[in-house]
Amino acid sequence: MTHWIRFEQDGQTGFGVLTNQTIAVYTGDMFGASTPTGDTLDLGGVTLLPPTVASKMVALWNNSRAMAAKMDQVEPSEPLYFIKANGSYLGSGGVIRKPHNYDGKVVFEGELGIVIGKQCRAVSESESGTYIFGYTCVNDVTAVGILGKDPSFKQWTRAKSFDTFGVVGPVVVTGLDPTNLVVRTVLNGQERQNYPTSDLFFQPATIVSLISQDMTLFPGDVICCGTSVGVGSMKPGSSVEIIIDNIGTLRNQYQD
Amino acid sequence: MTHWIRFEQDGQTGFGVLTNQTIAVYTGDMFGASTPTGDTLDLGGVTLLPPTVASKMVALWNNSRAMAAKMDQVEPSEPLYFIKANGSYLGSGGVIRKPHNYDGKVVFEGELGIVIGKQCRAVSESESGTYIFGYTCVNDVTAVGILGKDPSFKQWTRAKSFDTFGVVGPVVVTGLDPTNLVVRTVLNGQERQNYPTSDLFFQPATIVSLISQDMTLFPGDVICCGTSVGVGSMKPGSSVEIIIDNIGTLRNQYQD
Repeated sequence: MTHWIRFEQDGQTGFGVLTNQTIAVYTGDMFGASTPTGDTLDLGGVTLLPPTVASKMVALWNNSRAMAAKMDQVEPSEPLYFIKANGSYLGSGGVIRKPHNYDGKVVFEGELGIVIGKQCRAVSESESGTYIFGYTCVNDVTAVGILGKDPSFKQWTRAKSFDTFGVVGPVVVTGLDPTNLVVRTVLNGQERQNYPTSDLFFQPATIVSLISQDMTLFPGDVICCGTSVGVGSMKPGSSVEIIIDNIGTLRNQYQD
Repeated sequence: MTHWIRFEQDGQTGFGVLTNQTIAVYTGDMFGASTPTGDTLDLGGVTLLPPTVASKMVALWNNSRAMAAKMDQVEPSEPLYFIKANGSYLGSGGVIRKPHNYDGKVVFEGELGIVIGKQCRAVSESESGTYIFGYTCVNDVTAVGILGKDPSFKQWTRAKSFDTFGVVGPVVVTGLDPTNLVVRTVLNGQERQNYPTSDLFFQPATIVSLISQDMTLFPGDVICCGTSVGVGSMKPGSSVEIIIDNIGTLRNQYQD
């Protein structure tokens, strides 16, 4: 397993491999040819960025058996998805901001994120794994009051696209089996979500294969696998952590 | 009015200003500082690209009075929108492809497209015009059979995000009043849509202001203003043109 990280230091953007608290700085392309520069940095001395520059973030709805049972939804026959706007991307340590034009409930949704490594289109399930670079933690933040506000049009994109609502990180991990992970969400020190990725209807290999039948996926693109039960509100001042063992902790504050 | 165009020639991408059939080649940033190189090219000798490299394409639903009346929809209180995936972008002259995994109806939707010129967030309606670079023609191609396929989740993003379904061009025109244009769609030589932009519920200045309250818009981003009545199916072999006077003709073939 390799833990890839992106960061900013003294106004410069960089990337590298994280081992314990030390970043080995790399040069080149995270998804292509890259080489260590020999420099190392202390994790505490940099600002984390989303570990990937996604050209798009696709996110699934209704992809958890437990959540479907709770919401009285049936298993979908194919992935149901929307896109989160690029202005929403935020890394670990960044502040999730309450929308200035919305005073309703804002919820966390802890999820596994797939990071694409190679451009792909219409790939089979058996070959899709070679197009997946790795996995990350996602907080698919949602202004739930917007979703059903207009009875004629469910506003998935808008409710999930406010700036800072696409939280990703802290790292992208390669060489990980995604079917056997546990996603936990901790709000103000209290565990609120704890579910196995084995409970997802569609596993990453299937998701990438099926979505790539519709659209070309590019290196760095993120697909959020959908959340499970335990979703809840954040209040200004809340701290929220999405934790996946072997990936890490995506830690953010929510502020007005 | 300036007609900005992007093109490919001999494997090189370039941009410039179109006058009649001649492109004055520019260097620099279309949305920032750019200067003519002195070279000119014949329009017929290049392959057109989408005139802007959009970091996202936002598209409105239910933004036409005539269409709302026909579909028995009420005027929305705010813009209702989704995002079209970046793999869908296609310029004038490109081939719109039938999805290989879908055999239902695929329709054209002729629309006015707004092209953002400067990064903006939470701008007022009175100042939003300074963030708009110009306007283009859009064919918001849609696999309508996918929209309502799952009764629990309207698949706006998927139905509109197949590769080649985000058709934009041929140019971006600056210095144009967008409130007073006529959008026409011609399928196989027959006019199928003909509507004034004055019939839109939300005009571009309002759209940019309101969407920028939700999300940051970046230079080159496209917002599709929504279509009106006359939407219809394309069949393999169909030619489709979206025509807006003072912008130009966005001309494509639809193929299996």
